[in-house]
Amino acid sequence: MNDIVQTVFDKLLPDSSNPPVVANAFAPSNIALSKYWGKRDKSRNLPMNSSLSVSLGNLGTSTKISPADHDILIFNNNTVALTEPFAKRLFDFVRYFRQGQHAPLQIDSSNTIPTAAGLASSASGFAALTVALDSAFQTRLPESALSIIARIGSGSASRSLWHGFVRWNRGNSIDGMDSYAQPLAIKWPAFRIAIVTVDSAQKSQSSRDGMNHTVATSPLFSSWPAQAERDCLSIEQALLEQDFVTVGQTAESNALAMHATMSAARPTLNYLKPQSWTVLDSLWRARGDGLNAYATMDAGANVKILYLENDEALIKELFPSATYIAPFAPADACLN
Amino acid sequence: MNDIVQTVFDKLLPDSSNPPVVANAFAPSNIALSKYWGKRDKSRNLPMNSSLSVSLGNLGTSTKISPADHDILIFNNNTVALTEPFAKRLFDFVRYFRQGQHAPLQIDSSNTIPTAAGLASSASGFAALTVALDSAFQTRLPESALSIIARIGSGSASRSLWHGFVRWNRGNSIDGMDSYAQPLAIKWPAFRIAIVTVDSAQKSQSSRDGMNHTVATSPLFSSWPAQAERDCLSIEQALLEQDFVTVGQTAESNALAMHATMSAARPTLNYLKPQSWTVLDSLWRARGDGLNAYATMDAGANVKILYLENDEALIKELFPSATYIAPFAPADACLN
Repeated sequence: MNDIVQTVFDKLLPDSSNPPVVANAFAPSNIALSKYWGKRDKSRNLPMNSSLSVSLGNLGTSTKISPADHDILIFNNNTVALTEPFAKRLFDFVRYFRQGQHAPLQIDSSNTIPTAAGLASSASGFAALTVALDSAFQTRLPESALSIIARIGSGSASRSLWHGFVRWNRGNSIDGMDSYAQPLAIKWPAFRIAIVTVDSAQKSQSSRDGMNHTVATSPLFSSWPAQAERDCLSIEQALLEQDFVTVGQTAESNALAMHATMSAARPTLNYLKPQSWTVLDSLWRARGDGLNAYATMDAGANVKILYLENDEALIKELFPSATYIAPFAPADACLN
Repeated sequence: MNDIVQTVFDKLLPDSSNPPVVANAFAPSNIALSKYWGKRDKSRNLPMNSSLSVSLGNLGTSTKISPADHDILIFNNNTVALTEPFAKRLFDFVRYFRQGQHAPLQIDSSNTIPTAAGLASSASGFAALTVALDSAFQTRLPESALSIIARIGSGSASRSLWHGFVRWNRGNSIDGMDSYAQPLAIKWPAFRIAIVTVDSAQKSQSSRDGMNHTVATSPLFSSWPAQAERDCLSIEQALLEQDFVTVGQTAESNALAMHATMSAARPTLNYLKPQSWTVLDSLWRARGDGLNAYATMDAGANVKILYLENDEALIKELFPSATYIAPFAPADACLN
């Protein structure tokens, strides 16, 4: 266990925990419109800049926790050996909730994200785990505390507790108690995302490693945090005004700037592959012909297309094998 | 004529010019290992950072100037109408040398750059024109003055007056009298360049426009000039030590950082095309297998590979349709 992380839990949890009961939780995946890229504190996962995301409705992680004779992890219906790094990382997180109790648990977690979409699942995974643990140990933490705890598991998990648009405020305090996400009171039922998957022959490094490498070596990184902060504000304002062009342009520029900081790292880091650029070129050509759609890309080769419902036929023609997502369609309950 | 440019010529030229005589000049193309990207003064073409290039031997521009009855421009054996923007730009430049004289000229200019290589010719073109004009009007200017004058025609032309490695010092003065290039006293006969041409379906904007757009709108540009200055120094030092790995790594990182500043511009600017990234991926895979070669890319889709003579067979296998250049092979005379 990490002493710094322990102090975060000490501030948030009651002095002792209840014996666990059966609990279920769902948390959606999310895609950032203004990215989280760069940590000011690696132990606490404190970001250099605020970020803003949209959650993916029913695509996410469902987690069930049950008292058991010994720790068991079942992921997508397969038992995972406790010696696996993934299981270790997960049960390390659980220990903070146990607070020294002998309370073996079975954790049964399933992703509802189509494999084809190639989305990272650590955000929805740690968000669902946090909510399930809060429920299992009956800690009944406020939402801000749940977001801080999910953040400790994986930075972008702080934003996966809610449906819709979510803003993670960077905060300023050293202990990170003001660095949590909140849902925006904005509904936009016509908002759509298409995930265009790209074969990535080479296995990229983890986003955590890529982020740290970029912060440490990219001569262009120093300009990023202030720009990302501005982009967050622009996008929030444009969402309030339902100004799709500004949302799309700013999100696309923000993503390209993030990837630019990586490409300038030494040695270079390029999650985008030639085929990603081909997808972007197709999009840009279509936009030149009047299509109202924009792209965003995370620490991987896939391209996510932002568009509105009335352009869905055009998007399906342009990217016929994409995964199409309606973030505001009815979905499993999470915090909201 | 531009008043600011006139003051530059007034400082460099004698009070009046001689009647022109027949003159010939050759100037090589050059490829920057540390790029010129960003102007601090657009009239005088003063750069924000120093740059360092290698000239391309016999690939360049030959220019002949002869007194004539009226102005004539012949380019690659074709007469160019004087109303063409290219002809206007060229004869505008000639006027500064005429200093008011009635001195009609025939300018006959030919590029020895294979079209397939897709190299920009404004650098060698303005360098050859400058030397030919100096000779035609018998002004016998010092090399630093020729470099300043070539710079006025096209920034990177300041470096195209010499064979081999050339450094353009950014200078500090407002009038740009200390912003000129000088050849480095370094011979490296084993140094090689392969130009891998990439079909660019979309016509990119000019490097001049792309540079200005990037400086004006890219949130990452502000970090570029200081890094480019450091890269120039690292490369010059590594050239002195014939440390090819450092030359290559630094040149490649420098080029990627320049392209990253563009990709982050708003709207984005990407001279590199998907196929450029495919070439880079092939190179990086081969380097992972031990090949000692690096890439650099200018304001276009082509990729230039830096390597040493003993790897030529491997490079020809990897990029069979490239143009292979030996910068230190015997070449037409220029200033050195």
